[in-house]
Amino acid sequence: MKIDGTPYRSVWVDHTDSWSVRIFDQTKLPWALDILRLTEPSQVAHAIRSMQVRGAPLIGAVAAYGLCLALRMDATGPAMEAQAAMLAQTRPTAINLRWAIGRMLDRLRPAAAGERVRLAYAEAAAIADEDVAMCEAIGRHGVPLIAEAAARKPAGTPVNVLTHCNAGWLATVDWGTALAPIYMAHDQGIPVHVWVDETRPRNQGALLTAWELGRHGVRHTVIADNAGGHLMQHGQVDLVIVGTDRVTRAGDVANKIGTYLKALAAHDNSVPFWVALPSSTIDWTISDGLSEIPIEERPTTEVTMVGGRALDGSVAMVRVTPSGSNAANPAFDVTPARLVTGLITERGRCAATAEGLRGLFPHETVPGGAEIAGMAAHL
Amino acid sequence: MKIDGTPYRSVWVDHTDSWSVRIFDQTKLPWALDILRLTEPSQVAHAIRSMQVRGAPLIGAVAAYGLCLALRMDATGPAMEAQAAMLAQTRPTAINLRWAIGRMLDRLRPAAAGERVRLAYAEAAAIADEDVAMCEAIGRHGVPLIAEAAARKPAGTPVNVLTHCNAGWLATVDWGTALAPIYMAHDQGIPVHVWVDETRPRNQGALLTAWELGRHGVRHTVIADNAGGHLMQHGQVDLVIVGTDRVTRAGDVANKIGTYLKALAAHDNSVPFWVALPSSTIDWTISDGLSEIPIEERPTTEVTMVGGRALDGSVAMVRVTPSGSNAANPAFDVTPARLVTGLITERGRCAATAEGLRGLFPHETVPGGAEIAGMAAHL
Repeated sequence: MKIDGTPYRSVWVDHTDSWSVRIFDQTKLPWALDILRLTEPSQVAHAIRSMQVRGAPLIGAVAAYGLCLALRMDATGPAMEAQAAMLAQTRPTAINLRWAIGRMLDRLRPAAAGERVRLAYAEAAAIADEDVAMCEAIGRHGVPLIAEAAARKPAGTPVNVLTHCNAGWLATVDWGTALAPIYMAHDQGIPVHVWVDETRPRNQGALLTAWELGRHGVRHTVIADNAGGHLMQHGQVDLVIVGTDRVTRAGDVANKIGTYLKALAAHDNSVPFWVALPSSTIDWTISDGLSEIPIEERPTTEVTMVGGRALDGSVAMVRVTPSGSNAANPAFDVTPARLVTGLITERGRCAATAEGLRGLFPHETVPGGAEIAGMAAHL
Repeated sequence: MKIDGTPYRSVWVDHTDSWSVRIFDQTKLPWALDILRLTEPSQVAHAIRSMQVRGAPLIGAVAAYGLCLALRMDATGPAMEAQAAMLAQTRPTAINLRWAIGRMLDRLRPAAAGERVRLAYAEAAAIADEDVAMCEAIGRHGVPLIAEAAARKPAGTPVNVLTHCNAGWLATVDWGTALAPIYMAHDQGIPVHVWVDETRPRNQGALLTAWELGRHGVRHTVIADNAGGHLMQHGQVDLVIVGTDRVTRAGDVANKIGTYLKALAAHDNSVPFWVALPSSTIDWTISDGLSEIPIEERPTTEVTMVGGRALDGSVAMVRVTPSGSNAANPAFDVTPARLVTGLITERGRCAATAEGLRGLFPHETVPGGAEIAGMAAHL
């Protein structure tokens, strides 16, 4: 997507040296546009761990490039395995991270050491390109939802889409998942306006979604997470589109904490509630999201401390709870499939049901394994 | 309630001079316990306008004392009327503010100028005392809900109550509304733990509710507003108690933005959802909250800027949205009566229905007027 007119991806190989890896330091956004140059796998590990890059698809692609950098230093088998293991452990729960590293190793293990650097860059580029293609396909399958909503409104009236957290191009290599249909609608000239949940406690909506929508030129308004239900009650939301971290084979959706509350409000007000995802997000091994998806408890400082830009222009943290008050920070919640209007995948839209998913993905095995892991390779 | 063992009200006449008025500067809480001494009506107006005092019942009591201070300076009729009008306009929507000023004028207009100061202090004290009695009665009628929940749990296991915003003693003269049953349960030795919604955008939960519960010694945990649904899904909330700014005669509840989302989640998980209110909050003139209660749009800076304590100990504001991103800030929402388990009033509990309210308040007229306005006087 574009930053003030210039197209970017969220990870790329430096055009001048053709080997170092470039990312945005997302911990600095929106306050500074710092483009980092990564030259060593330890820098990549730090970037993932410290959330300079975040979003499951992006983490996978960046980790793949991390292995490229490792192989430039030592392309022997034992060194490759050690660096791959190190990179795979940088985030505990990101499923794409281990998938990407596994795919790289499958490609590299049979090759001669002297061939590995070239093969690795090609495979990492394929992972990145496939992610872009997958997100673009999600956009293509999602954009009719916005176009149809526009057709039901007076000409020129923007379609109001509410989203929660950041499932935009910053979380993938390009396009995003939930935001892909929005960018595509915008680029096609369909008037669209986005209600951006600020998404406490980490404020990914206020900090990242608002920034990337604004830089691409998409109209948007930041709201407290508390406001969405009221807006839906008053007809100010035409549809909701969110991303997801994991979908069960029955269509239950794990996503950023608070998603469930928006799904309840959408259901109560007959507002369509859509979830956009690459099929790698589907966990074919589980059915009941509430009992089977573990919910990460993150540090309570994310609740008690808020970061932002101080009046003097510096980036600062302020404490927003009294000393002595405890906090709790469950990072995700599960929206039962019954509240989900449908899923938008790279193969099309479907109902959030076992039958709906099976219709789009008839060849997935349960419990999943090799076939699922290889899926992205033959898209 | 107590601050670290010492009992306080949220407004009182100074014990040493018997005429100046004392309040906490609530804009400084929880970072500093600043007790202000108000000696002139202009200071009272500023305190209300700048939200040094907030909460409808407290605003009413403080405004009444503001008129006392005005009369000390000039007790003639025209001066009294002018000062009363000035005080009544300090906040546009607070129903108790105009009610309290009206009640003072009813008492003072017939009196001789020389009698007015003494009468005014007596009437203001009566308003404050009646508010305390009303909140204490709400607590008495609410505490069985907590006691019954405790009886259903293993001995010593705390009852988990979720609350939204601040409806505690800081919002009234003492006890609070939603928190009154919680304080009373705690004081009776019933183990109780409160999930405190931080309540974006103004963070009244994180700043005020957490502080007042902590200072009185009530166990509590601050959570992002997004977290409550997840906690309810996992059986970690036994009941919800919130306050309200206005209740229709049919039981629809206007309260701080986000309340509706919690009511939806409570309903979806069979968690009792109770609303605590003095009957002065009931608007007998309207029935349908969604169409008839105007929702205040507050400044967007409440969404885009967050205040807190910086690392150096100073109180600072940080911006949490990109420059160029718009924000919206509806301050209240309406929870339909169908989602409300019941109402806790000073006369007892009732269903959130026209019949339920009529049962407790058979003599209110619709549309209301004199009889309603005078109600608190004969409690």
